[in-house]
Amino acid sequence: MTTYKLLLLPGDGIGPEVMAEVEKVVGWLKRAGLADFETERDLVGGAAIDVHGKPLADETLARADAADAILLGAVGGPKWNGVAYDIRPEAGLLRLRKDLGLFANLRPAICYPALADASALKRELVEGLDIMIVRELTGGVYFGEPKEITTLEDGSKRAVDTQVYTTAEIERIAHVAFDLARKRSGRVASAEKNNVMKTGVLWKEVVTKVHAEHYSEVELEHVLADNCAMQLVRRPKQFDVLVTDNLFGDVLSDVAAMLTGSLGMLPSASLGATDARGTRKALYEPVHGSAPDIAGKGYANPIAMIGSLAMCLRYSFGLGEAADLVEGAITRALAAGARTRDIVGVGQTPISTAEMGDAILREL
Amino acid sequence: MTTYKLLLLPGDGIGPEVMAEVEKVVGWLKRAGLADFETERDLVGGAAIDVHGKPLADETLARADAADAILLGAVGGPKWNGVAYDIRPEAGLLRLRKDLGLFANLRPAICYPALADASALKRELVEGLDIMIVRELTGGVYFGEPKEITTLEDGSKRAVDTQVYTTAEIERIAHVAFDLARKRSGRVASAEKNNVMKTGVLWKEVVTKVHAEHYSEVELEHVLADNCAMQLVRRPKQFDVLVTDNLFGDVLSDVAAMLTGSLGMLPSASLGATDARGTRKALYEPVHGSAPDIAGKGYANPIAMIGSLAMCLRYSFGLGEAADLVEGAITRALAAGARTRDIVGVGQTPISTAEMGDAILREL
Ligand SMILES: CC(C)[C@H](C(=O)O)[C@@H](O)C(=O)O
Ligand SMILES: CC(C)[C@H](C(=O)O)[C@@H](O)C(=O)O
Repeated sequence: MTTYKLLLLPGDGIGPEVMAEVEKVVGWLKRAGLADFETERDLVGGAAIDVHGKPLADETLARADAADAILLGAVGGPKWNGVAYDIRPEAGLLRLRKDLGLFANLRPAICYPALADASALKRELVEGLDIMIVRELTGGVYFGEPKEITTLEDGSKRAVDTQVYTTAEIERIAHVAFDLARKRSGRVASAEKNNVMKTGVLWKEVVTKVHAEHYSEVELEHVLADNCAMQLVRRPKQFDVLVTDNLFGDVLSDVAAMLTGSLGMLPSASLGATDARGTRKALYEPVHGSAPDIAGKGYANPIAMIGSLAMCLRYSFGLGEAADLVEGAITRALAAGARTRDIVGVGQTPISTAEMGDAILREL
Repeated sequence: MTTYKLLLLPGDGIGPEVMAEVEKVVGWLKRAGLADFETERDLVGGAAIDVHGKPLADETLARADAADAILLGAVGGPKWNGVAYDIRPEAGLLRLRKDLGLFANLRPAICYPALADASALKRELVEGLDIMIVRELTGGVYFGEPKEITTLEDGSKRAVDTQVYTTAEIERIAHVAFDLARKRSGRVASAEKNNVMKTGVLWKEVVTKVHAEHYSEVELEHVLADNCAMQLVRRPKQFDVLVTDNLFGDVLSDVAAMLTGSLGMLPSASLGATDARGTRKALYEPVHGSAPDIAGKGYANPIAMIGSLAMCLRYSFGLGEAADLVEGAITRALAAGARTRDIVGVGQTPISTAEMGDAILREL
């Protein structure tokens, strides 16, 4: 059996707590003989700043580069709010994405039946919701240059960010979206602001071309990003695969995540290109942040982190059945009433992070 | 009595239909001796492209510059989808905003009690909702240079948009937000992405400084734009005044608008700086778009457009009482059961655009 090298980067806040629960599942998969892993741990984000003075040490990046897949908890927290822009915790995450070329961010927004009532939206609008947001992750305003603040003669300042997209960058993310759509409902919506942004004009043009040349059996719809945000609230089930740029993807995927009722539930995958040997770099992380306010209390929901492991099994190791097993165990644990505080309903008693991990383990 | 010069720019799609209803209200205000107006009409958007070959003729801009206030319907539609980026309908609106210096876009998101059930959100989350979004409107990625698409040697393309903000631009919009907060609940939330964007770093810095120096009695909270979008869905009533940049404002104000149950209900004001004579340029328009699919059918809801006139009375002419009258008439017409199709409930019969205008007129 192949031994996969898994790098665990727990990070900050609730990151280490939810990572501990993933390690239980990793242990179970090994014992059950379903997969073999060699796990390493390292620091990222604020935790790395505290030790190395920067959020991603070069050794850590090298380790990430050598790993078959990376699981990341979360980065950031008020402790590091004062630190300079380039060494803040988030910079570590952004560098990981950029330097490993993880251009395709897959963010499923799924409404678990047992939790439909936890949504801010009316039940009928979210019940059965299953959207796959495909966010471009290594381009756009996140990385374009110039990105700087200059001080003018009168002492006032001028800040600049630059959004850049090339044909090649848009093509490859479009392929990811259309390929996913083929395996799903066969529908893609592409969101940009071509009425205001030149990157939106090129985005729409390239997505249209990739569609026409390779995926004419998939249904493609173009939607302005502002309208898309509204439509997500109004009638989210109209979407299946939603492809968009880095910045709109950041906002739209958070809206979609919130619709499902609990952010603590949603995993994500960030994938690189497939190389000649058929392997691709990949990082898996929850959609939720480091939630410093509840860190250390055992309140965190480990489901997003464990779901990220399931995505890892599926997308990095081709272990679709093991992924189904883990996802099934999550669904069953929820159906059996296991609830951390973020998803507890009226009359239910919340359990701790570790108890949720154990509840899922029992269903495996 | 002062005679105010009002420029009406109905624009495209449902724009002319909703503008016709505003003209009824303008007529009533004149007859009632509450305000005197001299109205002119002109073309903007697609309607202007059809006649002048561009979305905003120079004469129209001159007329807009000379007017005391502008009422705009909506621009755009599929008819002009093929036209070049710089002469598409939206370009007319953007030029109006930029050339008249309308930097402060006020977008109230109010949930009318009679309509709380029309929201996608659960009633208790939106009942009584009253947010004022203050969006910067003449800066950011909308207007920064370079903004271009270049063709590379291999025939592929590279698109660039540039987001620029200066201290002065952020200061003046911050003042607008804090001044509004003083008259409201005394709370401001400021949304940016300082963890990714340098414009976000400067935004946060300047807003913090303006707050500390002039408005320490107002409560200020900084929120990341992606989190803000989520929070708007999760618990919208936590916000009162929300200040943000042009692009985030575009998306966040649309989310907030959608929460209230009907986009057809919401007005907006775009204000310039106050000059030495105490006057300021101003444009008022509905938040909704041109809705080409229902244009010409009498389905459009004129409330956002009539509400925009009320904002005009209040912000441009200091006629707060007349504004209250118009807003009160809208609320009463709704309470009496007047419903266009977009807001019709189970068991209710929809009325037409003109009938809604008349229903409001009857309540004046
Ligand atoms: C932490 C931050 C840099 C990051 C982003 O903006 O991409 C986060 O919001 C996310 O969506 O993963
Ligand atoms: C029509 C378009 C250019 C405009 C914008 O993006 O500002 C619209 O969405 C708005 O919010 O007024």
